[in-house]
Amino acid sequence: MRDEITKRILCQKVINGIKWKDVADEIGCSKEWTAAACLGNMKFSQDQAQKITQIFQLDDEDTKWLQQIPARGCQADSLKNDPLIYRWQEIISVYGPALKEIIQEEFGDGIMSAVDFTMDIQKIASPTGDRVEVTLSGKFLPYRNF
Amino acid sequence: MRDEITKRILCQKVINGIKWKDVADEIGCSKEWTAAACLGNMKFSQDQAQKITQIFQLDDEDTKWLQQIPARGCQADSLKNDPLIYRWQEIISVYGPALKEIIQEEFGDGIMSAVDFTMDIQKIASPTGDRVEVTLSGKFLPYRNF
Amino acid sequence: MRDEITKRILCQKVINGIKWKDVADEIGCSKEWTAAACLGNMKFSQDQAQKITQIFQLDDEDTKWLQQIPARGCQADSLKNDPLIYRWQEIISVYGPALKEIIQEEFGDGIMSAVDFTMDIQKIASPTGDRVEVTLSGKFLPYRNF
Amino acid sequence: MRDEITKRILCQKVINGIKWKDVADEIGCSKEWTAAACLGNMKFSQDQAQKITQIFQLDDEDTKWLQQIPARGCQADSLKNDPLIYRWQEIISVYGPALKEIIQEEFGDGIMSAVDFTMDIQKIASPTGDRVEVTLSGKFLPYRNF
Amino acid sequence: MRDEITKRILCQKVINGIKWKDVADEIGCSKEWTAAACLGNMKFSQDQAQKITQIFQLDDEDTKWLQQIPARGCQADSLKNDPLIYRWQEIISVYGPALKEIIQEEFGDGIMSAVDFTMDIQKIASPTGDRVEVTLSGKFLPYRNF
Amino acid sequence: MRDEITKRILCQKVINGIKWKDVADEIGCSKEWTAAACLGNMKFSQDQAQKITQIFQLDDEDTKWLQQIPARGCQADSLKNDPLIYRWQEIISVYGPALKEIIQEEFGDGIMSAVDFTMDIQKIASPTGDRVEVTLSGKFLPYRNF
Amino acid sequence: MRDEITKRILCQKVINGIKWKDVADEIGCSKEWTAAACLGNMKFSQDQAQKITQIFQLDDEDTKWLQQIPARGCQADSLKNDPLIYRWQEIISVYGPALKEIIQEEFGDGIMSAVDFTMDIQKIASPTGDRVEVTLSGKFLPYRNF
Amino acid sequence: MRDEITKRILCQKVINGIKWKDVADEIGCSKEWTAAACLGNMKFSQDQAQKITQIFQLDDEDTKWLQQIPARGCQADSLKNDPLIYRWQEIISVYGPALKEIIQEEFGDGIMSAVDFTMDIQKIASPTGDRVEVTLSGKFLPYRNF
Amino acid sequence: MRDEITKRILCQKVINGIKWKDVADEIGCSKEWTAAACLGNMKFSQDQAQKITQIFQLDDEDTKWLQQIPARGCQADSLKNDPLIYRWQEIISVYGPALKEIIQEEFGDGIMSAVDFTMDIQKIASPTGDRVEVTLSGKFLPYRNF
Amino acid sequence: MRDEITKRILCQKVINGIKWKDVADEIGCSKEWTAAACLGNMKFSQDQAQKITQIFQLDDEDTKWLQQIPARGCQADSLKNDPLIYRWQEIISVYGPALKEIIQEEFGDGIMSAVDFTMDIQKIASPTGDRVEVTLSGKFLPYRNF
Repeated sequence: MRDEITKRILCQKVINGIKWKDVADEIGCSKEWTAAACLGNMKFSQDQAQKITQIFQLDDEDTKWLQQIPARGCQADSLKNDPLIYRWQEIISVYGPALKEIIQEEFGDGIMSAVDFTMDIQKIASPTGDRVEVTLSGKFLPYRNF
Repeated sequence: MRDEITKRILCQKVINGIKWKDVADEIGCSKEWTAAACLGNMKFSQDQAQKITQIFQLDDEDTKWLQQIPARGCQADSLKNDPLIYRWQEIISVYGPALKEIIQEEFGDGIMSAVDFTMDIQKIASPTGDRVEVTLSGKFLPYRNF
Repeated sequence: MRDEITKRILCQKVINGIKWKDVADEIGCSKEWTAAACLGNMKFSQDQAQKITQIFQLDDEDTKWLQQIPARGCQADSLKNDPLIYRWQEIISVYGPALKEIIQEEFGDGIMSAVDFTMDIQKIASPTGDRVEVTLSGKFLPYRNF
Repeated sequence: MRDEITKRILCQKVINGIKWKDVADEIGCSKEWTAAACLGNMKFSQDQAQKITQIFQLDDEDTKWLQQIPARGCQADSLKNDPLIYRWQEIISVYGPALKEIIQEEFGDGIMSAVDFTMDIQKIASPTGDRVEVTLSGKFLPYRNF
Repeated sequence: MRDEITKRILCQKVINGIKWKDVADEIGCSKEWTAAACLGNMKFSQDQAQKITQIFQLDDEDTKWLQQIPARGCQADSLKNDPLIYRWQEIISVYGPALKEIIQEEFGDGIMSAVDFTMDIQKIASPTGDRVEVTLSGKFLPYRNF
Repeated sequence: MRDEITKRILCQKVINGIKWKDVADEIGCSKEWTAAACLGNMKFSQDQAQKITQIFQLDDEDTKWLQQIPARGCQADSLKNDPLIYRWQEIISVYGPALKEIIQEEFGDGIMSAVDFTMDIQKIASPTGDRVEVTLSGKFLPYRNF
Repeated sequence: MRDEITKRILCQKVINGIKWKDVADEIGCSKEWTAAACLGNMKFSQDQAQKITQIFQLDDEDTKWLQQIPARGCQADSLKNDPLIYRWQEIISVYGPALKEIIQEEFGDGIMSAVDFTMDIQKIASPTGDRVEVTLSGKFLPYRNF
Repeated sequence: MRDEITKRILCQKVINGIKWKDVADEIGCSKEWTAAACLGNMKFSQDQAQKITQIFQLDDEDTKWLQQIPARGCQADSLKNDPLIYRWQEIISVYGPALKEIIQEEFGDGIMSAVDFTMDIQKIASPTGDRVEVTLSGKFLPYRNF
Repeated sequence: MRDEITKRILCQKVINGIKWKDVADEIGCSKEWTAAACLGNMKFSQDQAQKITQIFQLDDEDTKWLQQIPARGCQADSLKNDPLIYRWQEIISVYGPALKEIIQEEFGDGIMSAVDFTMDIQKIASPTGDRVEVTLSGKFLPYRNF
Repeated sequence: MRDEITKRILCQKVINGIKWKDVADEIGCSKEWTAAACLGNMKFSQDQAQKITQIFQLDDEDTKWLQQIPARGCQADSLKNDPLIYRWQEIISVYGPALKEIIQEEFGDGIMSAVDFTMDIQKIASPTGDRVEVTLSGKFLPYRNF
């Protein structure tokens, strides 16, 4: 089902040299969200699903699956050893306690949402080597007593 | 050793109502790095260690420990169920594959360093609720064949 | 620190036969939230912390710790074999997929918040045996594309 | 076997736009139980199985499988990273100890059954955003000495 | 708390050569339940708690703790390699699927309760070696649709 | 191989409505052992294997596989979340330490065999609900010094 | 309790340079069983316990603990990374399937007991380097149908 | 690849009633090594590979695969619940610490090799029941400082 | 996709007796990097990909896949029991803490990169047996405060 | 015991600013082995143990413990999140399969010993940043059939 579609999307991407940036422009979203959605972790609107079907030469039935809410996070375990992904794990290990302290000192008791959330990745040129700058923005959700 | 010092720092912080922001100003670093270091995941310079010793009323011997390179990531497992920390885990589960795709589409084959790395946390006011904006900047390190 | 205070609260509760219901009335919250807070998973307001200190004969310093945001979920692993707790694990195993389907069919793509959240436990008398009725209410948080 | 049938049910649901609510009405049960059963975690009566076979265009042989008692909880591990499901995990981590304390304070020594159990999901409109209200009702089963 | 009392009970048992059978007679329960309770997995009535306090020379405060509902299953992980305990794990591995099939063929859809439950251990003399005969009796709890 | 045969046995059982009890009578063993063997955890004698082949309409080659000693316990992990199976896990968590104490108090140092072992499941009618009574009988195997 | 005694035995062994071989001779058992018992995995007879108390300068109360049946296998997890112990794990990984095949081809369906079991370790001199020869002898326990 | 060949070897073995002993004689090795190799944990010489191909009616291409060094230990996890295999795990849990103590007392600091290693399984008849006697011989490899 | 190509590369290697050394010469890289890349853990340049396609008789479409950045570390779990691979795990267990101490004493606070990294394997002849000499070279990446 | 001594060694090292290099010169071994030994993973000779006792101001009794063979690998789990240590884990994940292929292509079937093993760490100056060069040398141990 959705898994199979993700594999076919990736195959088409490789064979036809499609760029996430271009897909994103086509469906009117950021490249970050577009990639997350094409990889099976977000649902598309009807209009987007039709465009995705066209770009990646999928079947009509797939258009319906692309509009379903997916089971998110399925691929996470198979990527746990990948060095790029692990660096993010390491950020949580090393900076996680500080993250908790600072957010709670500045905002009070609550969390940073991973649902009402956006992510933006920029390439920052630098004489000592390019830097990856990732900006994560999540709504602060306060705990309340009841 | 370092573990014990972290506990005493946290005790002093609570009892005396110390803010990470103020500690950061005192030692001339960001609040994010300062919290990470006070929580035992970074080493201080000699000058910083002396200030930290003073601020948190530590012992002279502790000043030396604060300048040691710590075993990083020790607290990570005990925080794995904390909702604020988990949201970051979820970001990796849900957005990790997209992160890998986008970084590699834009930068080529390599990783975003978690060592040559900075983190900045901002409070973004918004009519629908404040947002936590976290900017992570890591040097891009390319894979090379050999 | 907070761990130690939780243990002392439980000791006082046993020795003096204190009821969560009575503590809840004293601090003006539900018995559910009060128990969660006394067990170290919620932070108290200053006023509440003073009352808790009094009720459980804690020290002045503890009053400050009770107002700190705790590392939530610490006890979770040590209770994983407890039959009452496990039944809730089982509800997720057996009814989790249905929960996801129904919530998403009725609300669209999003989650039920565990932060903007309340819980109410009632005893429902029944001729075939009392029933535990637990009402969980969490704000629906929609996913948004970006 | 049952696994395969679940996949085909989900495919038919997507392709034909079937709603759990409508299936539930057809077989005379709640939408929650119906979804749980269609997802392979409950057994159908003969009459229900025939209706399910018709609605989802299954084979005659499948009607027999739908009446078998399933191996429950099989899909649980593959959903463990899904944000909606995880929030329930988090409720156990954060509120589990309180749940145990309150149930046992009010009912005595025993558990809330996950077998003699019902679940009801309601959408509660609210100016600050809809809320998901889930009512879980389980028979209280007392421990007895022997 | 309860953990500590269990340790002291075991110490007294060893030093004074107390038998579970005799403790059981004293408090009017089976030896199986008595051992489970003394090991910290069951709660005692007030009368039983007083007798246990006396038999094992515990403190007055302990009498109150013995009447609390314990966190059950705490010692389970530390015994997982013990050969006697593992054989029971093996019974589940090897005979578990058959157990499920037979119970469900004979009783219908439901479970055998581990709460409304008794256990009896007998020594059966045999010329080829004594046999341990354990009789487990649990109420059948049927699943119901809703 | 054996796995495949187990699946085919279960399919035939469902489609033709075969009962374990009847299979057991046919091969002259208890229903408990018969189910364990058909589910792939015991080996059949040549005579039994031929009868099983006939009852479940297997192939001639399968008759040979049914006489092989299987890799026992293969299905155990996939059933770990099933409520009926888990209750047995819970019995070990909650009553395991008592089981060890009582067996060793009555028999001395040793284990209850899970190999020289029989299991019998009975339905005990009761006005407050039927009970599942399971009698497990295992040879006591004493530890010896050497 | 027993754990503590094991630690004191090891301390005395190091400080006084005691050899397992000599302890074994004193209590009339093999060096292998003696070490296993002193390390807390076997119980001593009353006579042996008294000698052990004397050899390792333990307390009178310890003599009683040494005669208790221990919780076996407690230290196993802490040694899992030790290279000498791991080699045995590797033998199971690499040769385990062959072990199962050969034992069952030669003995029929059953297991090699780890309870009715002896172990003997010999040093075999060889020009290319000494060899450790370990002979394990366990009673064959046949499976029986019932 | 090698996995597939192992499955075909086992099928041929069952269908044609081949004994490991006879295969071993054919290729001039012990039955223990032969079984390990046929199960995919050892590599064959060219001459042996040709004989194995013939005995088990494999394809020519398989002859080449049989001479490859395999990824050893692949099947280990799927056998972890098998009672015969587990007994060896138990030997490590219960006797592992003694094994380490005795080998190191007699040989000094080092390990018993699992690579320069042989294994021999004998059936020892005994009036109280046959015994499995397994002799493991591994070269002692001393640690050296550098 | 890439997985499938790796399997076909290994098949061709076995059937045609191809050596990593020769492949390495063909594509102008070290044998170590070449093997890592062919096993699916590195990406090839266009020119290299074409040569690899030819050497291993792959399809044209595969040439494109070989130039994709792979999900690294996928095979790691399936090799965790292999003795050659485990020895490296053991080096980390036994020498890891020393490695950390020495690198940080000599270089300061930072890590040895596994991305800007080369590996060289040499055969060192020795009268007491050949030695494997592996030289790992990784750029030192210093931690910086911010 | 040994654990405690390691902690005291580290404390003295920090307080007195001792360098591993200097300790190594004192006892006549490499800095790599010396650190491994001081961290509790190697045993010292009598002469070395006396020097270590002096350098780190340990007690006389500790001298005896330092000459014992330790339980190696104990600290491994607590360092698993440390970035420097993890990079080595990553080398196994990413380069492990290549390592196995190359060693076995060049040496035949066998392993690289982690016991008959040396490790050397060098600082290689480079205009683009210093490199850590680690040379690992392990005896090749061939598998033999038997």
